Amino acid sequence: MSSGESGRTESASKTFYASSDDTKICVVMVGLPARGKSLIAGKALRYLAWVGISARIFNVGTYRRKLSPHPLANFFDPHNPEGEKMRWAAAEAAVSDMLKWFKESNGVVGIFDATNSTKQRRAWIHKTCTEAGIETLFVESSCDDEEIIMHNILEVKTTSPDYKGQDPEVAAQDFRNRIRNYEKVYETIDDDEKSYTYVKLINVGSTVIINQIKDYLSSRLVYYIQNLHIKPRSIWLSRHGESEFNLTGKIGGDSDISTRGEAYARALPGLLKQSGVPPGAKLTIWTSTLKRTIQTARHLAAETGYDKLEWKALDELDSGVCDGLTYEEIAEKYPEDFAARDEDKYNYRYRGGESYRDVVIRLEPIIMELERSDNIIIVTHQAVLRCIYSYFHNMSQEQSPWMEVPLHTLIKLTPRAYGTEEQRFKANIPAVSTWRGKGSSAKHQDPVDGTQPNH
Amino acid sequence: MSSGESGRTESASKTFYASSDDTKICVVMVGLPARGKSLIAGKALRYLAWVGISARIFNVGTYRRKLSPHPLANFFDPHNPEGEKMRWAAAEAAVSDMLKWFKESNGVVGIFDATNSTKQRRAWIHKTCTEAGIETLFVESSCDDEEIIMHNILEVKTTSPDYKGQDPEVAAQDFRNRIRNYEKVYETIDDDEKSYTYVKLINVGSTVIINQIKDYLSSRLVYYIQNLHIKPRSIWLSRHGESEFNLTGKIGGDSDISTRGEAYARALPGLLKQSGVPPGAKLTIWTSTLKRTIQTARHLAAETGYDKLEWKALDELDSGVCDGLTYEEIAEKYPEDFAARDEDKYNYRYRGGESYRDVVIRLEPIIMELERSDNIIIVTHQAVLRCIYSYFHNMSQEQSPWMEVPLHTLIKLTPRAYGTEEQRFKANIPAVSTWRGKGSSAKHQDPVDGTQPNH
Repeated sequence: MSSGESGRTESASKTFYASSDDTKICVVMVGLPARGKSLIAGKALRYLAWVGISARIFNVGTYRRKLSPHPLANFFDPHNPEGEKMRWAAAEAAVSDMLKWFKESNGVVGIFDATNSTKQRRAWIHKTCTEAGIETLFVESSCDDEEIIMHNILEVKTTSPDYKGQDPEVAAQDFRNRIRNYEKVYETIDDDEKSYTYVKLINVGSTVIINQIKDYLSSRLVYYIQNLHIKPRSIWLSRHGESEFNLTGKIGGDSDISTRGEAYARALPGLLKQSGVPPGAKLTIWTSTLKRTIQTARHLAAETGYDKLEWKALDELDSGVCDGLTYEEIAEKYPEDFAARDEDKYNYRYRGGESYRDVVIRLEPIIMELERSDNIIIVTHQAVLRCIYSYFHNMSQEQSPWMEVPLHTLIKLTPRAYGTEEQRFKANIPAVSTWRGKGSSAKHQDPVDGTQPNH
Repeated sequence: MSSGESGRTESASKTFYASSDDTKICVVMVGLPARGKSLIAGKALRYLAWVGISARIFNVGTYRRKLSPHPLANFFDPHNPEGEKMRWAAAEAAVSDMLKWFKESNGVVGIFDATNSTKQRRAWIHKTCTEAGIETLFVESSCDDEEIIMHNILEVKTTSPDYKGQDPEVAAQDFRNRIRNYEKVYETIDDDEKSYTYVKLINVGSTVIINQIKDYLSSRLVYYIQNLHIKPRSIWLSRHGESEFNLTGKIGGDSDISTRGEAYARALPGLLKQSGVPPGAKLTIWTSTLKRTIQTARHLAAETGYDKLEWKALDELDSGVCDGLTYEEIAEKYPEDFAARDEDKYNYRYRGGESYRDVVIRLEPIIMELERSDNIIIVTHQAVLRCIYSYFHNMSQEQSPWMEVPLHTLIKLTPRAYGTEEQRFKANIPAVSTWRGKGSSAKHQDPVDGTQPNH
């Protein structure tokens, strides 16, 4: 749609999720300690923030620590009345804050992160939320794979604030005792809770049971959760090699890569190897459908034999009527739009083109598939890479469109229990910088002269 | 991307699903008679055809009828050796044809539609497929809701070829006896089949169990199946009222509706009522984000109080550089593209814009949500409406882009067990016709002079 309309700044994400405009959901985590509940909660939060849904985690452990910072395992014994009382008080405080947040801060998804291990506790939460006009979605994570549980105990829980400064061995033993105390009373979600909306994850991702999903937002969230896995893997991100358009400062288009871009394409297999690919790992190469990404991945595919996949969803942000222009030309032809874009770059939609928000929406299936997948290397474009990167690093919508992603650089992301590890590998091949600061209409230029123009 | 590239005709759907390029899947239906297996199989087939995946149903009943056209219930008694033998022969013939189809016709998803009610039978299919390099996805439909079962028995099975020409009462009784014979040996998929990839649907859509999904195509197919429900409902489709651009023969844009378009918007609530809305039913109105659909739905929303939802995915096919031009202008400016579009309209991608195939891909979430939803009225655009319509009527990719969808007409679709019922309601408000025949570049014109131009 290139004519007759000005660059709109409507909320496309709000549009996408509008059916949930009046839906408020409390996601209630359920499961024994060390079953990955907080990991799932954290990922769901990141996903929701990324698609523009107001969400927040209410972790009962955090509230309990205010009352009892370093409890030993017997604190969690169901026959210990004092421990029981404090844990109940912590749960009540968390729920009370959550309800307040729904009401006063217009929250949409509150994630109630605790073991919620008895039917009685779940019935209480369900009743409390229902009375406040909030839907509940129970997410139970159960696990009988000893290796996964031990991994969680060692990697996550010994770094818990509960055991700060303690010997990891002693902490792990105490934590195993704590789990045993929970096991005494643990009740899995079963048939007499059929009226609840729930999803049960058995050994994260291998079996999933879904019950009574009612609204659109829950359906999307459950689909996201059912795609999660916790096998170790990495995701590599790269922009295409320098393109002919980059050289002339034009945006968009479907130009070939330049001579220096071709040099980067040839260097990419070595760069990937240098970044550390696990022995025997089989990566998959994802590109957009545009020539500059396919050309950049060409040698990598040929030398490694990795499978290649072209996604239209990975194509660059569509700059509509500005496609093929330089920033100078845009500033001259569409001065108001140019200023409006600087004002709110995330929401600014090019006349006849897309906003960052639009790109995030079309990238949603990519994120779903990334969560399902093992090792992936993605060769794509500046704006698209920013959106994917912001998902992994939980960057704000204000920040992400301004983030610098240099050409001829490979980024390796490795998801961990809390957050994503990052390493960058620079090929020693010069390229123009395409980063543009707010308010500037400088042409793309060689970084040697210090100017930093941008898409 | 409007510059430097010509109208491409690549297979975006192939791109979208490329990870499945070498994946072949046998979907094995499992369940007692009258549990909606054939309904699910038929819907899955329609969905796959719509996204461009080569799929086919192999119904064992059809093979069995060649050997025994009108068997009585005792034919299905597990202790009847003759019946058992024939049913086994039918299953073998169906599987053999399926394997042949995978091999010789490059089939991607074969749907094996039978009761497959014993573990032994499922192990045999799994082994046979695995040996042929084909993955299996078991889809079990179980149902303890007597109302749904009776509904299936009466509406579907008394129209079965098995009971052709027979008294429906007698047929229904015999069919119930047949089900009893199956129940004697029926084994649900359980824990010792955990190594299979499967999805269990309990009371279609209310509870879903998903196990060991491995590849992208299975993941999409399972997500589709888990969204299905069988509650009765209708879907209404309408184009926006006549727009200012329609009047001048321009395509695309974001113009207002014309005076006649406004008259249609005012007539729409009455037209919907006339089409028959179930008493007490609460519809939801979906529009695109473009003015002409929002304006068209305005009075409907105001008069009924139905919820409204704007979807960017429902925006008109993006005609890229041709946006805002008339067909005459396009034929003059881009004669080769104009001819190429006539040649293969489904795959033709406007320079810097979209093809019908692209539109189908972005409509996939809309179809998923439509399957999950109850009564919906969609006010959208010609090309988008064609794509949605073709999903419900299983129209070919060759036909759908040429289908006539007149302005100022409401289409009511009601999904039935086999296929979709359709009624059309014309508002008595004149509008230009926007249908264009192959090879013609005629302007949009009033239908009174008989010319039929088109988007």
